[in-house]
Amino acid sequence: KINSERLWNTLHETCEWGAEHRYGENPTDTGMARLTLNDDDARVRRWFAAEVQKLGCSLSVDKMGNMFARKSGRLNSAAPMIAMGSHLDTQPRGGRYDGIVGVMAALEILRTMKESGFQTNYDVGVVNWTNEEGARFPKSMCSSGVWAGAIPIQEAWGLRDIHDPSVTLRSELERHGYLGDIACSSDPATGYPLGAHFELHIEQGPILPENNRSIGIVRGAQGYRWLTMIVHGKDAHTGTTPFSARQDPLLASSRMIAASHDIAKRHDALASTGIIRVPSNASTNTVSSQVTFTLDIRHPRDSVVHAVQDECLKAFEAIASQDGKGVSFDWTLDTDSPAVKFDDNCVASIQAAADQLVGREKSMLMTSGAGHDTVYTSKHCPSAMIFVPCRDGVSHHPTEYCSPQDCALGTQTLLEAVVHYDQF
Amino acid sequence: KINSERLWNTLHETCEWGAEHRYGENPTDTGMARLTLNDDDARVRRWFAAEVQKLGCSLSVDKMGNMFARKSGRLNSAAPMIAMGSHLDTQPRGGRYDGIVGVMAALEILRTMKESGFQTNYDVGVVNWTNEEGARFPKSMCSSGVWAGAIPIQEAWGLRDIHDPSVTLRSELERHGYLGDIACSSDPATGYPLGAHFELHIEQGPILPENNRSIGIVRGAQGYRWLTMIVHGKDAHTGTTPFSARQDPLLASSRMIAASHDIAKRHDALASTGIIRVPSNASTNTVSSQVTFTLDIRHPRDSVVHAVQDECLKAFEAIASQDGKGVSFDWTLDTDSPAVKFDDNCVASIQAAADQLVGREKSMLMTSGAGHDTVYTSKHCPSAMIFVPCRDGVSHHPTEYCSPQDCALGTQTLLEAVVHYDQF
Ligand SMILES: NC(=O)NCCC(=O)O
Ligand SMILES: NC(=O)NCCC(=O)O
Repeated sequence: KINSERLWNTLHETCEWGAEHRYGENPTDTGMARLTLNDDDARVRRWFAAEVQKLGCSLSVDKMGNMFARKSGRLNSAAPMIAMGSHLDTQPRGGRYDGIVGVMAALEILRTMKESGFQTNYDVGVVNWTNEEGARFPKSMCSSGVWAGAIPIQEAWGLRDIHDPSVTLRSELERHGYLGDIACSSDPATGYPLGAHFELHIEQGPILPENNRSIGIVRGAQGYRWLTMIVHGKDAHTGTTPFSARQDPLLASSRMIAASHDIAKRHDALASTGIIRVPSNASTNTVSSQVTFTLDIRHPRDSVVHAVQDECLKAFEAIASQDGKGVSFDWTLDTDSPAVKFDDNCVASIQAAADQLVGREKSMLMTSGAGHDTVYTSKHCPSAMIFVPCRDGVSHHPTEYCSPQDCALGTQTLLEAVVHYDQF
Repeated sequence: KINSERLWNTLHETCEWGAEHRYGENPTDTGMARLTLNDDDARVRRWFAAEVQKLGCSLSVDKMGNMFARKSGRLNSAAPMIAMGSHLDTQPRGGRYDGIVGVMAALEILRTMKESGFQTNYDVGVVNWTNEEGARFPKSMCSSGVWAGAIPIQEAWGLRDIHDPSVTLRSELERHGYLGDIACSSDPATGYPLGAHFELHIEQGPILPENNRSIGIVRGAQGYRWLTMIVHGKDAHTGTTPFSARQDPLLASSRMIAASHDIAKRHDALASTGIIRVPSNASTNTVSSQVTFTLDIRHPRDSVVHAVQDECLKAFEAIASQDGKGVSFDWTLDTDSPAVKFDDNCVASIQAAADQLVGREKSMLMTSGAGHDTVYTSKHCPSAMIFVPCRDGVSHHPTEYCSPQDCALGTQTLLEAVVHYDQF
C-alpha cells in the first residue's frame, strides 16, 4: 500500500521548482510555470534522476531527453519493462497535477516496492516524457511522438522557443545535458522499447466529478482534427455600406462558429473555436477584410469526426453566400489525430484494480477527450490510462486541484494495475 | 463655370505630398498617407496658404490649426462668411478624394470667381479642418468638434500619435507653426463664426452608383452609437469539456453578432462588428476566457438606433444563458452621435443647383451614413453637403476613385449652391 502522505509531500516539494501564479494563502496555493527544459525543469529532472538511482534503478536518457528509470524484476527477464509514464513539464499558467501526478505516483510505487521488498516478475519503471505540453516548443506529446516514429526527430529538435526563436529544443537539451545517448525509438536494437505503458493523469474535465466517480478507466482517446478557416471579405465603411453591398467575413465567421457548434451537438461530438483574429488595423467603423478562426472537432469515432467536418464545410459554403454579396473561404488541416483504442489487457488490469479498490459504482470506463503520451505509446506497446478527478474539471490553470485522497487512490490503482498486468 | 482640368490637375499635383500605396501604372494610381500634421500635411497646408493669398484672400488659423481663407463680397458686410469646407488629411491607407475633393473644389471656385470677376454679395471662403480622419490622433472630426464646442480643446490638444505617444496634436501644431492665434470657436468675439457651411465629399458608399445618380443632396447624417461588449466565460479544454459544462464566450459572441445583424436588418438599420478580440494567449484547444467585440449601430432616426440597441441587449441576455453553463457580459458606450438634420435653406440651394445641372433623374436626396465636419458645423450655422459617387463605393482604401467628370460636376454644384444661397 502506497504512502499517501509521502506522495503528497514529494509532489508539492518538487513543485517548488517552477511554482508561479499564487492564488491563495496556503503554501501550495500556486500554479506552475515549469516549461520544458527551462532551468526549473532541469532541476526537477536532476532531482528525479538522483531519486530513482537511490532506489536502485538504472536510468537511461534518449536523444529527446526522455528519461527511463528501470527496476529489475524477479525473473531477470530481458523483456522490455512495464512502464508508468507521464510528464513533468507544465503549461505557462499550468497547475501542479497535470502530468506531474503521473510521474510522482510512479516514483511512489517504486519507493513502496523497495520499502516492502516487493518484486515484480518483469522489470518495471518510470518514464518522464519530454515536452508533452508543447507550450514552450510548440508540438504537444512531442517526444512520445518521436519515440513512436510519428514525428521526425529533426522536426522535434528544430522546434523553437515561442518567445525566443534563437533557442531550439535541441539547444536546450544540450545546455542541460539531456541530449541522451540512445535513440528515441521503440526499436529494441537502438532505442528503448517498452513492454507496456500505464499513465495516471488528472481527467482535465468534469465527467468524473459530475458522475461522482473516483477512477476513470480509460480505454481509448477520441479522434480530433484541427482546422484553420480563413474567411475573405472586403473592407467597407460600416456607416455608408448597406448590408446588401457588403462582404462581411466577421458576420460570416460568427454564423459559421454557431453552426459548427450546432452540427457537433447533433452528432454528440465536440466542435470548438478557441482563436479568432481580425487584422491588427481593424476598426469599429470598418467591415473587416479577413477573419481567421480555428476549429477543433472531436469524437471517439473517426467517422463521426469526418462527418462533422463535412457537414460544417457544407454549412459554411451556404453561410458564405448568405449575407450581402457573400464571402469566400479557405481552410487548412493543422492536426489530424485519429481515435485510438487502448489495449484490452491493460484496460482489464486497470478495471481489476479499480473493482478491488472502489468497486463499479465509483469507477467508470471512459474515453480521453485530450491527447496524452499514451496515445503515442499505444502504437508500439500495450497501453492504457487511469484518470482521477480534478476539481470542477479545471486544468491548464493555476487553480487546478486534485485532492490528496484522489492522488493516493489513483496511485494505488496504478500500482495494482501494474502488478496485475505483470502477473498476467 | 469651373475649369475641370485645372481642378483635376491641382488635386493630383498636390497629392504628390503624401502619395503612397501604388496600385497601378498611371502616375495617379496611388493612394495617400497624408496623416494629420505630418510633414506632407504641413507641405500641402503651406501650399494652400500661398494659393489662397495669391487669390487675394485673407487667411486665419485658429488654435486647432483650422485654416479659414476668406474672399470679400460685394457688400463688404461684416456678416460671417459662407464657407466651403472639408479636410486635407487622409487615412494611413487612404485615397486621393476623401476630403481632398472638397477643399480643392472650394479653391477652384475661388479661382473661377477671380478669373471671371464674379463677386458674391457676402464674403465666401474655404475651410481646411484639421484631423477630420482621427487616424493619427484618434478622434474623428476632431477640430470641427472643438470649433462647435462639442470637444474640449485640452482633450483635442492632448491626443497622442497612435504610434508615438511622445507626440501630441498640440506639439505637432507647434512644430509646423499651425497653433494659430484665434480661438477655435464659432464665438464672434474670440473665434471664427461661419454664416453657412457647404461640404462637397465623395459618398464613400454604393448608393449613388447603384441608383445611377451623379449628385447626392445630403439633408442630414444618420445617428450612431458605438458599443464595446465584453463577454466573460471560463477557460476550458476543448477536448475534455462537454458542451454542457462550458461557459464559452466566443460561441456566445458569435451568436450575438449574428443576432445584432438580424435585428438591425428588421429595422432597416445597420449594426456592424469591426473588431473582435480573444486574449493573446488563446489557443486552438482552449475555450477562451473572454471575448471583446465592437458594435456600431446606425439609423437616420435616433429612436430606431435606440430600439436596435435595446433589442440587441435583450437578445444578448437570452444568448448569454443559451449554451452550456452560460456566460456574462458587460458593455460600454464609446460614442453617441445623434442624428443630424441639415439646414433646409442650404439643402434647397443644393437642390436648385442640382436641378439645373443634372435634373431630378440624376440627383437624389440622401442621408450621410458617416460622420463629417458638417455634422459639427450644422450645430452653429446653416449647413448641408453634396455627395459625388466614388467607384464601387470604395473609400478609406488606396484605390478610392472619383472620375474627373464627377469631381467637376460636384464642384459646379457647390459653386451654384453657394451663389444661390448668397443671393437668397
Ligand atoms: N492533454 C492535452 O492537453 N493534450 C494536448 C492535445 C489535445 O488538445 O488533446
Ligand atoms: N467619414 C468618416 O469616416 N467619419 C468617421 C465617423 C464615422 O464612422 O461615421
